[in-house]
Amino acid sequence: MKRRRPRPSGEFVRQAGDLRLIPLRTLPEVTRGTDLAGLIAGAAQREGVEFARGDLLVVAQKIVSKAEGRTIGLASVKPSPLALEWAPRVGQDPRLTEVVLRESRRVIRMTERALIVETRHGFICANGGVDRSNVPGERVTCLPKDPDRSASRIAAALRRRTGIAMPVIVSDTFGRPWRLGLVNIAIGSSGMSVMEDLRGTSDAHGHSLRATVLASADELAAAAGLLMKKNAAVPVVIVRGFPYRHAHESALCLLRPAAEDMFR
Amino acid sequence: MKRRRPRPSGEFVRQAGDLRLIPLRTLPEVTRGTDLAGLIAGAAQREGVEFARGDLLVVAQKIVSKAEGRTIGLASVKPSPLALEWAPRVGQDPRLTEVVLRESRRVIRMTERALIVETRHGFICANGGVDRSNVPGERVTCLPKDPDRSASRIAAALRRRTGIAMPVIVSDTFGRPWRLGLVNIAIGSSGMSVMEDLRGTSDAHGHSLRATVLASADELAAAAGLLMKKNAAVPVVIVRGFPYRHAHESALCLLRPAAEDMFR
Repeated sequence: MKRRRPRPSGEFVRQAGDLRLIPLRTLPEVTRGTDLAGLIAGAAQREGVEFARGDLLVVAQKIVSKAEGRTIGLASVKPSPLALEWAPRVGQDPRLTEVVLRESRRVIRMTERALIVETRHGFICANGGVDRSNVPGERVTCLPKDPDRSASRIAAALRRRTGIAMPVIVSDTFGRPWRLGLVNIAIGSSGMSVMEDLRGTSDAHGHSLRATVLASADELAAAAGLLMKKNAAVPVVIVRGFPYRHAHESALCLLRPAAEDMFR
Repeated sequence: MKRRRPRPSGEFVRQAGDLRLIPLRTLPEVTRGTDLAGLIAGAAQREGVEFARGDLLVVAQKIVSKAEGRTIGLASVKPSPLALEWAPRVGQDPRLTEVVLRESRRVIRMTERALIVETRHGFICANGGVDRSNVPGERVTCLPKDPDRSASRIAAALRRRTGIAMPVIVSDTFGRPWRLGLVNIAIGSSGMSVMEDLRGTSDAHGHSLRATVLASADELAAAAGLLMKKNAAVPVVIVRGFPYRHAHESALCLLRPAAEDMFR
């Protein structure tokens, strides 16, 4: 609304069609049981951000896991023989390795370089999304049990508070085969289509776009990742101006079925 | 500059720290020899966009390839026996398959599902980046020979026109193992660091971030991908507000060396 109000000329006024990413920087430390929607709404207010219809939110997995109590104190973990065998070869804490194995339903690669697993949800990533950064003390975080449900809970609570229905993506940074560096991807989603299917449509020259399905939720997560980083304490990014499609679609739709996957 | 000018209260004013993505929508059809920087500057002017210090540009590979004459008329292609053998099994034009093989330095997977190759640059992708969409007639586009150089040429020409040094990323949509859907990634880059290395820094709790290198150029390309799509005729996106680091760094730095790659 307000963002479309015309501005004095001479200023940069173009807005329709622009995409805007707005970081929230003042969320306090999250602990088990924290009301994330309350924290997000509070931070937005403090930072002068007014939610608008059409906004969507990308929320970092780390704060979702913390709020849901998905952290594990390493002191309580008794490593299995496999974890004890493998961890020293990669300089990892065997208790961390043990947590990774417990979170997994399949080991994809177990080498001196990395432990790549398929998590119980079906995500394939290093260390099964188990992570030590941004967690106080001798604790690790695991991925939320059901990241779609986490997203949907946050969306519902924000809707109750603000009166605005906004899709929510829960994101985490994953590595990739073939390319270096981590990128932020969508592990949970609520209220929007996670893919944009252009098959059956035509390009400007009348060719049908046969193979073109875009992973929009991953691109949204990646865009938010530019503001989140790991050490910057930006766990929530508001995306304004993306014409998403309303849908009940799980982020798990973005997983390539094992039978179709040539690299598993 | 202008984006920081204070606005009347009651309006949505928060801008510092925001990221803005501005699509250019009025570029005319590009052909061999087209001066891309001229076209981009013209479109920006037409659309009321004033470039600002700190901006960077993401440019779709497709228009770069066309401007550089990297299109091939299929009528001129004589398929090899291998292309003739394989193409019918996947319903592909053998001449297209032939162009893919010519662009490749290694075949990674050749199955009924897809032809995944390593291009002469080192990118691993389906069909070696050879593409039929958005090309008139019986022609295909190949990736630019040296996408970093393409980026750097566009950056230099834009600097001459506008007086502003802006990094340029050349992007293309790639598929991924394990996950469905295409995402836009960086295949060429000029004027900025393509990765953000957080190793050696600490998180909020004093843990050092050992494995954290972010592929910023890929996240920038993905963000731009949200506006580009394939059929939307947005071949250029301006990114405003991303605190990139000046550097002479090739987008090839994002390629994982084969020896370190567990999925090749």
